Amino acid sequence: MLDLCELRLQDDGRFPWVVLSPRRVGAVELADLPYAEQCKLLVEIDLAGRLVRTLGQAWSRPVQKLNIANLGNVTPQLHWHIVGRRSDDPCWPGPVWGQGTPEPLGREAVETVRTIFARMQNQG
Amino acid sequence: MLDLCELRLQDDGRFPWVVLSPRRVGAVELADLPYAEQCKLLVEIDLAGRLVRTLGQAWSRPVQKLNIANLGNVTPQLHWHIVGRRSDDPCWPGPVWGQGTPEPLGREAVETVRTIFARMQNQG
Repeated sequence: MLDLCELRLQDDGRFPWVVLSPRRVGAVELADLPYAEQCKLLVEIDLAGRLVRTLGQAWSRPVQKLNIANLGNVTPQLHWHIVGRRSDDPCWPGPVWGQGTPEPLGREAVETVRTIFARMQNQG
Repeated sequence: MLDLCELRLQDDGRFPWVVLSPRRVGAVELADLPYAEQCKLLVEIDLAGRLVRTLGQAWSRPVQKLNIANLGNVTPQLHWHIVGRRSDDPCWPGPVWGQGTPEPLGREAVETVRTIFARMQNQG
């Protein structure tokens, strides 16, 4: 559990990919958050980035570049994508959104993420 | 002139679009900036967002949603895109990167941006 955001795992095994959504009803743009909460969001984006990197390692596909984005053209509620990219991933070097077909994650992959996330949170 | 970043206008009249690049040699990931600079970056992203919105109004195409992203899959030096999107733009609702053909801006459009930016900076 993060202070500001819900963290969700994107159900797409092509990329280690999580989504952070601040628990602020009606927030659509980054500017809808007070500045202090934007700064808190940075802390949670950093944690999400480390989670994504750890997940890439667990999948033997270490992340080469993080992609961090707030688009929200389809889903208005403010949310940030944190995606681990590699030069051999199926969308490289283009963006991932709306490209190709997601590969649903199995139960085992989801459990791996849960374990990594719990460990990271315990480490603070 | 911003404290942290170079601000560049993307030469593509399809969207009001600027790029912020922190003047930190070798920075590639957001996490390469100290936290205090990340928080400063938020201030400059906010200004860039207001610039993009003002530009959209000047073009009689008010922005409906900002897209804010650090990709960097092609150009490693850390940079952030701030793009004004509308449901009638040529890429909606998909992302803009690598899609379609950019429409170069004329001299007049560039001068408009300069004027708007100068006015915003004078207002602080």
